[in-house]
Amino acid sequence: MNLKALHKLGYGLYVVTSRKGDRLNGQIANSVFQITSEPPTIAVSINKNNLTWEFIKESQVFAVSVLSQDTPLSFIGRFGFKSGRDIDKLEGLNYQIGQTKAPVVTDHAVSYLEAKVIKEMDVGTHTIFVGEVASAEVLNEKACMTYDYYHQVKRGTIPKTAPSYIGEEGSKNKT
Amino acid sequence: MNLKALHKLGYGLYVVTSRKGDRLNGQIANSVFQITSEPPTIAVSINKNNLTWEFIKESQVFAVSVLSQDTPLSFIGRFGFKSGRDIDKLEGLNYQIGQTKAPVVTDHAVSYLEAKVIKEMDVGTHTIFVGEVASAEVLNEKACMTYDYYHQVKRGTIPKTAPSYIGEEGSKNKT
Repeated sequence: MNLKALHKLGYGLYVVTSRKGDRLNGQIANSVFQITSEPPTIAVSINKNNLTWEFIKESQVFAVSVLSQDTPLSFIGRFGFKSGRDIDKLEGLNYQIGQTKAPVVTDHAVSYLEAKVIKEMDVGTHTIFVGEVASAEVLNEKACMTYDYYHQVKRGTIPKTAPSYIGEEGSKNKT
Repeated sequence: MNLKALHKLGYGLYVVTSRKGDRLNGQIANSVFQITSEPPTIAVSINKNNLTWEFIKESQVFAVSVLSQDTPLSFIGRFGFKSGRDIDKLEGLNYQIGQTKAPVVTDHAVSYLEAKVIKEMDVGTHTIFVGEVASAEVLNEKACMTYDYYHQVKRGTIPKTAPSYIGEEGSKNKT
């Protein structure tokens, strides 16, 4: 068995946000996907140790911002490698409070979706939350970040001279 | 609300296969994703009207072949736009019977995973099946097909002169 087969699965890269009372938080996620069209539903898979999991569990709402390919690694690092228990991740960023009251991050976003949880499934370390889409907008037509592209940039296999090079400020971030 | 926001979500492209007794079948899917690492689990979202759904429901096993970027549209059309109720989709193709007894399609595959269903969630028109990985192999290091790339080729926005152009034989397939 070679579990590197799992690395061949394709994903985008997203900021998933939620709230708990007056507190707002978000995290990087790659497992976001549409499930049904009628009604439109999306699913996210969130680690139970993450603060965003606790917020979604409590408020039963979440928002997803689809990141553009030119999102700086520092922005991804802020949402991906720091905890909302230590810092206010949304401080200084552009976001709006959506219809569901979840915060919708618009910086570096190509589109966003807000959803109200209609089902959830416990899968050990993670929960899959399925939400009915409550609002959705396309913000621009930039190329979307893929998980594969993100890892290529981090590994340095996309050269700095490429037009899409992201910059070094976040390169010290660890996965 | 602009549901085109959903089109910005990123996916790979896969053949998902299963069996029911002696009958084998498979279909194209884009919603395949890893959920947990310990133990390794993957989820697939399958439309209840599809024969593969019936097979997974019955046998509780499935396999996923990750398609390479140079997969011909005709191959995708065979699995995506025809029903196993009408044709034997695996006839004439290279596949192997895996540990779970599910058929594993190796033609145009970069890697494959086999899984045994441990949980499922009914989401209206679709079911999300979560399976524990039973076997997994990487077959080659070709570029993987993304759902976005597949649509670009179909739309003709990737020119025929590009090294990765797929060919015309399947271009009459409809989504």
